[in-house]
Amino acid sequence: MSSLEIRSVETRDARFPLEAGAGTDAVHSAPVYSFAVTLLRSGGQANGTGLALTLGAGNQLVCEAVRLLAEGLVGREIDELMADFGAVSRRMADHPQLRWLGPHKGVVHLALASITNACFDLWATSRGLPLWRLLLDLTPEQLVSLLDLRYLEDILTPEKAVALLRENAPGRADREYILRAGYPGYNTSVGWFSYEDQEVRERTREALGRGFRAFKLKVGSPNADRDVRRATLLRELAGPEAALMLDANQQWTLPRALRMCEALAPMEPYWIEEPTHPDDIEAHRQLARAIAPVRIALGEQVPNRVVFKNFMQAAAVHFVQADCTRLAGVSEFLTVSLLARVFGLPVAPHVGDMGQIHQHLVLFNHIALGHEVLFLEYIPHLRDHFIHPAIVEDGVYRTPFEPGCSSDLAW
Amino acid sequence: MSSLEIRSVETRDARFPLEAGAGTDAVHSAPVYSFAVTLLRSGGQANGTGLALTLGAGNQLVCEAVRLLAEGLVGREIDELMADFGAVSRRMADHPQLRWLGPHKGVVHLALASITNACFDLWATSRGLPLWRLLLDLTPEQLVSLLDLRYLEDILTPEKAVALLRENAPGRADREYILRAGYPGYNTSVGWFSYEDQEVRERTREALGRGFRAFKLKVGSPNADRDVRRATLLRELAGPEAALMLDANQQWTLPRALRMCEALAPMEPYWIEEPTHPDDIEAHRQLARAIAPVRIALGEQVPNRVVFKNFMQAAAVHFVQADCTRLAGVSEFLTVSLLARVFGLPVAPHVGDMGQIHQHLVLFNHIALGHEVLFLEYIPHLRDHFIHPAIVEDGVYRTPFEPGCSSDLAW
Repeated sequence: MSSLEIRSVETRDARFPLEAGAGTDAVHSAPVYSFAVTLLRSGGQANGTGLALTLGAGNQLVCEAVRLLAEGLVGREIDELMADFGAVSRRMADHPQLRWLGPHKGVVHLALASITNACFDLWATSRGLPLWRLLLDLTPEQLVSLLDLRYLEDILTPEKAVALLRENAPGRADREYILRAGYPGYNTSVGWFSYEDQEVRERTREALGRGFRAFKLKVGSPNADRDVRRATLLRELAGPEAALMLDANQQWTLPRALRMCEALAPMEPYWIEEPTHPDDIEAHRQLARAIAPVRIALGEQVPNRVVFKNFMQAAAVHFVQADCTRLAGVSEFLTVSLLARVFGLPVAPHVGDMGQIHQHLVLFNHIALGHEVLFLEYIPHLRDHFIHPAIVEDGVYRTPFEPGCSSDLAW
Repeated sequence: MSSLEIRSVETRDARFPLEAGAGTDAVHSAPVYSFAVTLLRSGGQANGTGLALTLGAGNQLVCEAVRLLAEGLVGREIDELMADFGAVSRRMADHPQLRWLGPHKGVVHLALASITNACFDLWATSRGLPLWRLLLDLTPEQLVSLLDLRYLEDILTPEKAVALLRENAPGRADREYILRAGYPGYNTSVGWFSYEDQEVRERTREALGRGFRAFKLKVGSPNADRDVRRATLLRELAGPEAALMLDANQQWTLPRALRMCEALAPMEPYWIEEPTHPDDIEAHRQLARAIAPVRIALGEQVPNRVVFKNFMQAAAVHFVQADCTRLAGVSEFLTVSLLARVFGLPVAPHVGDMGQIHQHLVLFNHIALGHEVLFLEYIPHLRDHFIHPAIVEDGVYRTPFEPGCSSDLAW
């Protein structure tokens, strides 16, 4: 088993400039998609790659935090680590000095995401299994031992998590159809904030031709008319049956969000995303009541399971956009997915990993937890940088079969 | 006016090992009190020193974030900067790439704290005024222009903030008695977590002899009996009239917090501090209802005004422990103090600066905002490192008269 010992932890500060306008939204005007990468080297063929997304500046801070947090992993066997990963994760999250820099949020938590994702990748790679298969093969007890459920005692104890997995076991075989059908994608790259109408038009037509039936548009312009015009345009192009997601990226204050959601309701959005500040649970609660039946999606900047729990308790979110590159990796993503199941809420990940890891996780969520099949975000800008880029055909993610988390980058 | 131009931004990674046991609590077992220091050099005699506290490891991350965020300050005149500091602060907080690392929390927000505090120090130093005097001399409009009130529109608009300052103007002259009387302190250094009973006993007796009538004890032991024993000991030593603060430093889950608050109620705590995870607003709301009339203090790890607003809206906090080295510096501290006034809640700062800056801010809060006089935390371990250490005599902070924020360190 010595080949499964972690021999070294390295980091890479990987930055990928985008073509003009790509990735822009109302708040992030000049993104450089970047990964703070954790590389776990084992003695054998299997290695682990972990990703956390940033938008460029400061990516090196996350890399340095990875080095500080992951010190203790060298010399550990990956199987032993993953047998009790909930405790491993908690020890890193509660480092007696570094914890102060969060706690459980910001740079140190992004670093924990990268480290955790590298551990899962090494584990799956060493077993020769794609992540979704590895997770599906675990017993409920093994699955729950991966998770740090502290501070969720009022909603989700380990016993309750095990019970939830058991309750959903009977329908698993039926739900495995999704492995053959593929998981539907939605296209975020048609409607970036700085795209002119003509570009939205061309990209939407092209995406329709490639089988997409769900699209995201960035709103949150200081000019309300621009938002309405673009949303109207996209609705007309995509047709009445298409799902249309409108994303304000936190740009609105609560009073403005109330007005804008009203103005945009005639376009029948599938959801309104990040209408206001991601820490403002009470504002989202009030908004959710006011704009029903229009529904709210958020989560890409919700840092941890405790904040997600609060959003769910307040009925302030309808679509849980957990992201395993913002939360503490695959394991906290699974924790939030379990929480969402308790509250009867769907999970529609934000894909800081460009969908590479999340394509595995949505399969697990549907098959093992019984989460409904929605749409997985599709952002193609970095696909050439991955060794196994996600394959999206006819608007659906094809099930990945390569070992690991599909997160290996071509250096 | 060229002497008031900012010529350079430097940082210092200043770490101060503590004597055995000092600074320990249930979660932070081995702190090295550290400041990520921003140094603003002007052409003249006046310079600015800004502080953000960390517990050692990772302090360099905050320093590096300071360098990334503060780039645009070089060449700016300090008076011009402070004439519109709310907008200056918002621009840094919403840096289109670095914002992703928070937003408004964690390492980047600690960096903004350090930068902001340096700006206020340079401003006050350049005018030859102690911070409290400078702030008291501003018009309500000038004061409010220092603040970024975005995302508070439902509670506190700029107009309402100005009105609040005006409403409290009539009593100012009366409240200036506090400048002569001094602001009462409470002593945190009697009851660190790892101190043995004998040490608690000796330190409490010594503090009583120095005039203190308010004391903090660290609880949150895995052994409930230890917490009860130590609290009983401190109550007996300090007497029935003393104020006794019990601080769990987030160690309890909600179910345990409910039990422990009941067990500790007979010691009549003045407050219970940080009973559980600082992101768990709903847990604190439930706890506050269950343990009344025992009251809850928190804030040292509440990252920004939006989260504080949510705590206040939920009636989940009774004592607002804002900290200008965790929030985005002096200005966001003032914002939270205004919010607290709207909700009728007292502000009792956590002193990541060891009370050096906060001794100014509590004077302003009482005189200008009409906040009641409570206790200001006193932690003496770093006093020899400051050029103008706070002077605490007969249990009260003596009003500082040196120009600036009293944050200059002796290098």
